[in-house]
Amino acid sequence: MLSRHVLRQSVRNNSKLWTLGRLNHVAIAVPDLDQSTAFYRDTLGAEVSGKDDLPEHGVTTVFVNLPNTKLELLHPFGEKSPIAGFLEKNKKGGIHHICIEVDNIREAMKSCDEAGIRLLNKEPKIGAHGKPIVFLHPADCNGVLLRVDK
Amino acid sequence: MLSRHVLRQSVRNNSKLWTLGRLNHVAIAVPDLDQSTAFYRDTLGAEVSGKDDLPEHGVTTVFVNLPNTKLELLHPFGEKSPIAGFLEKNKKGGIHHICIEVDNIREAMKSCDEAGIRLLNKEPKIGAHGKPIVFLHPADCNGVLLRVDK
Repeated sequence: MLSRHVLRQSVRNNSKLWTLGRLNHVAIAVPDLDQSTAFYRDTLGAEVSGKDDLPEHGVTTVFVNLPNTKLELLHPFGEKSPIAGFLEKNKKGGIHHICIEVDNIREAMKSCDEAGIRLLNKEPKIGAHGKPIVFLHPADCNGVLLRVDK
Repeated sequence: MLSRHVLRQSVRNNSKLWTLGRLNHVAIAVPDLDQSTAFYRDTLGAEVSGKDDLPEHGVTTVFVNLPNTKLELLHPFGEKSPIAGFLEKNKKGGIHHICIEVDNIREAMKSCDEAGIRLLNKEPKIGAHGKPIVFLHPADCNGVLLRVDK
């Protein structure tokens, strides 16, 4: 009984160090950004942002603003885009990752590491919004590339 | 100029017949429901629901409640599950669909049909929550299986 008690206590303490937050966005890699933007804007009537080229991240983005969260349309920018391989395998596009917010990224990374969830970057990277992010290995997250954002 | 004006007027009128709403959920097909539930509950500290067997839909579900939306973990139930083929192709699981709400599903279906977006069911089906739903063809939606819910 003691070891079970200690384990439960540890989990409880861990859970106080950081908290999972909102679904920040669903990122969709698309082969034709204008066509995809037109689909969400004109056919579905969504509010969409303008195009934003992010050379340092190798993508051009358009945000589809829903009342409670966003879809992020991603298209390769430049020659070494991190989503080029994904679009090679998924010619029509597809969901690239989902992004969930946390209030303490280093403690969240520690909990994932301790639980055997592989981190794709050992140190937080800086995302397009200027805040630290980490990607979790899809093989450890039900085949889903999970991005965790501060 | 007249035809362009008429077209814009038509789009504007269409957009008044129905409105796109919240992202209701992101559905993730998983090969091991207990393990996936434990990951979201114990490692990420999320609030999760109990398991719900839905024989008429061929799935068992667990909801992961985030502050602004939900993840829906799906596991096959019975022999003819609609997600069995997906898990055959994606052994570790993956995002099966995303679900966006609308306030008038028949008008939304009409707009999609007129725009050449194929509907996977010609009449609204009744979803697990008892409300009408329609699936849009992923090949017409950037490789994303898009579920539209009333």
